[in-house]
Amino acid sequence: MPFYEPTTKDLDFVLHDVLKVNEQDIPGFDEMDRDFTGAVLEEAGKIARDVLAPLNRVGDEQGCKLENGVVRVPEGFEDAVNVLRDGGWTGFDCDPEYGGQGMPYTLSVAVGEMHSSANMALMMYPGLTHGAYAAIHAHGSDEQKATYLPNLVSFKWGGTMNLTEPQCGTDLGLIRTKAEPQDDGTYKITGQKIWISAGEHEMAENIIHLVLAKIPGGPEGVKGISLFIVPKFMVKEDGSLGERNAVSCGGLEEKMGIHGNATCVMNYDGATGFLIGEQHKGLRAMFTMMNEARLGVGMQGLGQASVAYQNALAFAKDRIQGRAVTGTKEPEKAADSIIHYPDVRRMLMDQKSFVEGGRAFMLWAATMIDRSHRNDDADAEGLVSLLIPVVKSFLTEKGLDAAISAQQVYGGSGFTKEWGAEQFVRDCRIALIYEGTNGIQALDLVGRKLASDNGKHVMAFFELVKSFIKENGDDERMTEFLEPLKAASKDLQAAGMWFMQNGMKNPDDALSGAQDFLNMFGHVCLGLMWARIAKASYAALDAGTGDKEFYESKLVTGRYYMTRKLPETGLLLTRVQAGGETIMALEAANF
Amino acid sequence: MPFYEPTTKDLDFVLHDVLKVNEQDIPGFDEMDRDFTGAVLEEAGKIARDVLAPLNRVGDEQGCKLENGVVRVPEGFEDAVNVLRDGGWTGFDCDPEYGGQGMPYTLSVAVGEMHSSANMALMMYPGLTHGAYAAIHAHGSDEQKATYLPNLVSFKWGGTMNLTEPQCGTDLGLIRTKAEPQDDGTYKITGQKIWISAGEHEMAENIIHLVLAKIPGGPEGVKGISLFIVPKFMVKEDGSLGERNAVSCGGLEEKMGIHGNATCVMNYDGATGFLIGEQHKGLRAMFTMMNEARLGVGMQGLGQASVAYQNALAFAKDRIQGRAVTGTKEPEKAADSIIHYPDVRRMLMDQKSFVEGGRAFMLWAATMIDRSHRNDDADAEGLVSLLIPVVKSFLTEKGLDAAISAQQVYGGSGFTKEWGAEQFVRDCRIALIYEGTNGIQALDLVGRKLASDNGKHVMAFFELVKSFIKENGDDERMTEFLEPLKAASKDLQAAGMWFMQNGMKNPDDALSGAQDFLNMFGHVCLGLMWARIAKASYAALDAGTGDKEFYESKLVTGRYYMTRKLPETGLLLTRVQAGGETIMALEAANF
Repeated sequence: MPFYEPTTKDLDFVLHDVLKVNEQDIPGFDEMDRDFTGAVLEEAGKIARDVLAPLNRVGDEQGCKLENGVVRVPEGFEDAVNVLRDGGWTGFDCDPEYGGQGMPYTLSVAVGEMHSSANMALMMYPGLTHGAYAAIHAHGSDEQKATYLPNLVSFKWGGTMNLTEPQCGTDLGLIRTKAEPQDDGTYKITGQKIWISAGEHEMAENIIHLVLAKIPGGPEGVKGISLFIVPKFMVKEDGSLGERNAVSCGGLEEKMGIHGNATCVMNYDGATGFLIGEQHKGLRAMFTMMNEARLGVGMQGLGQASVAYQNALAFAKDRIQGRAVTGTKEPEKAADSIIHYPDVRRMLMDQKSFVEGGRAFMLWAATMIDRSHRNDDADAEGLVSLLIPVVKSFLTEKGLDAAISAQQVYGGSGFTKEWGAEQFVRDCRIALIYEGTNGIQALDLVGRKLASDNGKHVMAFFELVKSFIKENGDDERMTEFLEPLKAASKDLQAAGMWFMQNGMKNPDDALSGAQDFLNMFGHVCLGLMWARIAKASYAALDAGTGDKEFYESKLVTGRYYMTRKLPETGLLLTRVQAGGETIMALEAANF
Repeated sequence: MPFYEPTTKDLDFVLHDVLKVNEQDIPGFDEMDRDFTGAVLEEAGKIARDVLAPLNRVGDEQGCKLENGVVRVPEGFEDAVNVLRDGGWTGFDCDPEYGGQGMPYTLSVAVGEMHSSANMALMMYPGLTHGAYAAIHAHGSDEQKATYLPNLVSFKWGGTMNLTEPQCGTDLGLIRTKAEPQDDGTYKITGQKIWISAGEHEMAENIIHLVLAKIPGGPEGVKGISLFIVPKFMVKEDGSLGERNAVSCGGLEEKMGIHGNATCVMNYDGATGFLIGEQHKGLRAMFTMMNEARLGVGMQGLGQASVAYQNALAFAKDRIQGRAVTGTKEPEKAADSIIHYPDVRRMLMDQKSFVEGGRAFMLWAATMIDRSHRNDDADAEGLVSLLIPVVKSFLTEKGLDAAISAQQVYGGSGFTKEWGAEQFVRDCRIALIYEGTNGIQALDLVGRKLASDNGKHVMAFFELVKSFIKENGDDERMTEFLEPLKAASKDLQAAGMWFMQNGMKNPDDALSGAQDFLNMFGHVCLGLMWARIAKASYAALDAGTGDKEFYESKLVTGRYYMTRKLPETGLLLTRVQAGGETIMALEAANF
């Protein structure tokens, strides 16, 4: 019953009308004209709609099964993965030197949103592989790159990231997995890793595990962690597969959602591992690709909100019940469609204004990642590192809200498995947790990123907002977008100022308001996006090009965000300024 | 792994320190002294902790199974139901004339919170039976009462409520189930009902279905609906069971949560039914007990939040990870417990301040229901009818928020089934939907209750808040509670005023802000409760009685609510005053 309709039109609008990607001075972006991106998105959208989405509920119902150490994925998953593999989608933004397509990251995010919307659990198999590719690409030796990258790019081999252990997730300093140096330069890896997404399956001939472990005698805590490549099957010199390594899946996690993805307990019993990068610098190596990984999780939150909204909207147009208070809307039917009811619309507008604004925010952040890499632009890198915790946390938290709101539109049907709305909620839920919980994102933002480089990046952000407001102030039609943006930005600055004045004296005063501050930041970003969308829409309307109703609906949706969502910054500022007193007052025993 | 710890201490505090139940001039309340309620809650709490809670995950995992028309409930459910039955808990507040214990409704809500917290799905079997009891008690003939009530009170027989059909939930005017009059005064009931909780099982010897159906030739829409008793087994004159009636379970719904409860498709194939009450007055009869039913759902939301909070708190005290920024808290451990981190505390305080304030609100509303019935007090009835949509919607919406926040405290463990946090979220989710969606509650509040009796009840509510503020203004310690309450109440009044000025011109302007208004109302109610809790705590501290730290923690928690949660009314007022323009502007086709 649930479906996925590709968001190609809106992606095209954001990429070209709002962000004007092919006018940006980023190497490779000049090729991203409307025709090209249109063709790519069209093809990617078809796969999302026709190949991935039909397997979303199959994956949820069947889940993964562990049989004698072998993980069985849901029916059809391997065929779908083959479609991605054969179309070159798994190496879409990978280095052409290793068989990738070398596409801009920004475009891969546009593609990724649709694929992840259609089937989040399935897309995590190539997703984690991409993470392993990226770490080896950045830190591996030439030999390691030659050995592993081509097969990871093609997804002939899968990849995983092994961080968590039962006693540690956030605090990786507590890692116990051991890596004992051998005479041949390899290491024997021993320990247990948990929550390893895509840790074991047979959709790829081999699986390349990236594993954090401690070399005995190294420094205590996070400074003594190294990163290792541990292949499931040893790779011979000629590239063919050798014997099975001493790594195995010891169990599958039963969880709330993403049942189609195998969440594995991985046991390393003296498995052969190869050091990647330097000894004791493993954490840095693993986190090199953190910005992309966290943006990817934000994309999952947005993606589930997007598909949840589409389905709720279709339901609201179809379901008839009662009559509108302001008079019958559809006399030809036994009752009016519920989309005519203000409270149903309120829910749909909440979802729509978040999804469309969030999409622009995500792609804007992606262009800055491209700029930081392709132009080696430190300012872009700084801005992106500031914004990434916001992208991850805000898009997942508000994404879950949107998915829950979409489920509510269905009434009782939303609680049944048949309609699929509840799966979007369950799948989306993990995005607030993994890749650093949202609380950790807030801590990263307030405790580190805000003050990094003497606050240079946050000042650059405020300057960017200010310039936009100034540049567009002459257009009176923009006032209803610019004024609320200015007010929200002022709230955000006041919160930052409050942290500066109080956080030094007592860090808990700042950390108590970290999540609220992050959400303020998210609102200001979406406010900025809606102002930019409004500008782009007026430009298109003035030019008389394209779909008039499409652009006008953007203006309405933007006004909704500005009048009803953005003012939340005021409340959040109140909370920030309340400090940590009532939060820290109770003794643990008195809760 | 998940557990339930009875909330007896807090229930005792609310009943006696805050509400002073046995000083209230309500018949029967004088007997509710501390010793008596303490003994009742102690016993009820033991059942919750030792009998119901251990079956909560069993119910979720096993679910219900339909085999040849028979529904198999999870293992242990029948034994647990027998414990409730044998202890007289199923008839706790029922009429002694039919074997009930005649206890105040207020006390039954206190008991019900614990039982529902411990196992929401299981408690719905006696819960729905109680609904059927109440409808027959209010509208049945003497003969019907004598035939059915004693066995419903003892839960020898179960009961159900049959409203929804595939084409109608909210809009019962669309009901198609037919009731054809027979010569012997009975009716032949034909049709399909869906989402019938506890519709079929074998834990009771018989099941008494209350069914809404239309007698052919009656008025159109909701004015032509009648209510029928349709027993699963016919009851002979001597009270023994006769032949099986033509009603059967056609399927079980697969759903997001409450798997332990059988959600049935019920097929009526010319089943024999008995009219209850008058022809065409069925809706009124079914909705007589609406206040209790809706408060019961609010209780479920609060109950799941309460158990979710308990478990999250235990996890936060136990889980060690990292070190506090302000210095090591637990040097004897390898890391500090996460309860020392401001963001974890923020989440716990959100949950705690909601659960404790919400508990007081729920019990306060329950006392007004008792007052309206036992004193035949029309003012109490009016106030309660105004507040019930708030109790239902606010306690479920914020209850779900709290359950999600509790899940977040666990990090990755929150997403696994093992720890149970995710089940509380899934079970809680339905409470926002059934018994009238939260959107319908908001419509009821703003569209009907607010203006009923010329606004008399809402004015009485504001007067009540005002008096409390005035009466306690001399105590300077109360200022930090009274000032925020005054501000929030002012926001709420401003919103009501805005509706009066604009809702007449365009009802959509009021209905667009209905949910926001309801949430403002909820905040003001919890603000009032926290002010009353503060007063009671200061009184106890001044008297030097009881547990000093308990009362002091109440003051801290109340301050948290006042400074960080209550100010949300300002944001909600902004939304209300934004009206319906951006909500109603888009054509359905342009979403």
